[in-house]
Amino acid sequence: MYFHNLYRMMKKLSYTEILKSRKTIEQFKKNMHYPISVILHNIRSMYNVGTFFRTCDAANINELILTGFTPYPPRNEIEKTALGATDSVAWRYEKNIFDAINKQKLTSKVVAVELTQGGRQYTSLNSDDYPLCLVFGNELTGIDDNVLECCDDAIEIPMYGVKHSLNVGVCGGIVIFEAVRIAGMLEK
Amino acid sequence: MYFHNLYRMMKKLSYTEILKSRKTIEQFKKNMHYPISVILHNIRSMYNVGTFFRTCDAANINELILTGFTPYPPRNEIEKTALGATDSVAWRYEKNIFDAINKQKLTSKVVAVELTQGGRQYTSLNSDDYPLCLVFGNELTGIDDNVLECCDDAIEIPMYGVKHSLNVGVCGGIVIFEAVRIAGMLEK
Repeated sequence: MYFHNLYRMMKKLSYTEILKSRKTIEQFKKNMHYPISVILHNIRSMYNVGTFFRTCDAANINELILTGFTPYPPRNEIEKTALGATDSVAWRYEKNIFDAINKQKLTSKVVAVELTQGGRQYTSLNSDDYPLCLVFGNELTGIDDNVLECCDDAIEIPMYGVKHSLNVGVCGGIVIFEAVRIAGMLEK
Repeated sequence: MYFHNLYRMMKKLSYTEILKSRKTIEQFKKNMHYPISVILHNIRSMYNVGTFFRTCDAANINELILTGFTPYPPRNEIEKTALGATDSVAWRYEKNIFDAINKQKLTSKVVAVELTQGGRQYTSLNSDDYPLCLVFGNELTGIDDNVLECCDDAIEIPMYGVKHSLNVGVCGGIVIFEAVRIAGMLEK
């Protein structure tokens, strides 16, 4: 019985099976998205931007907004890690981060992902936080103080280790998928 | 009152404050770790390996095991993304994946991260799954069928988008931090 159960679990999906369950870009764009948007401010690396596109596609989020000196499509280096997700994810570039945040505030709670004093855990998101707009900052310097002050709140991933930091793309994956998990729970 | 609360939230930690709360490598090694280990099998990219080191440091996991053709330290390309975490994370290289899995099975439940038929969600981990050993496979081909058969179970991240895949380092961050979140809840 246990073995039988295991066997069912262990059958890997074939590439054809994965393709069958994939949406087309048109289907994806018509889809309902999670009430989550993402701002990337002053991200330096095009590979990191591409990684965020791929994550936002997989997580079915609403919109990706690139601000400041964050590079934006079309760029070959972004495509290298986005793997086509620049076509499926709704995105726009807005140079001024304050304009971008203020627009998002009309519909969403704007929450910075940054280590702050008395920091709130990223796992504590609740119905008051949605629609949610997550703000991620520069790989080295994080989110500038004046930008942080403009946000409604800040959350952080607990850091247990020696280095006290994560790759920004990894950090994005963790926080975005936790926001999706909680949004899914709230829907029920 | 609300403003006061916001102000507290919004004070970014200075670099000195972050340094103060950092552990030294010796302190970190003496620490209790989460009952989670990670196997990386046939990972091609040294940058991805380094990213996993950094994530495993931040998540305070028990051990990182590199198998098959996964590159291992010391390599400059691994250091570039590990940023010193190769010194803090307990790791070893074991060429044969089956030997590695069978050793882990003596103490842990070995769970592959892979899309499978009737796939179990990565958010469904529970007390039966700990101590937990997570297995991640190749960037393009995932985990081979014969390796998958040797595992106790498989979990997956739901894929909502067009591409049906995530960067393996991002996938690692999401699953490892979810395993940490659930382990933390079970401890309470």
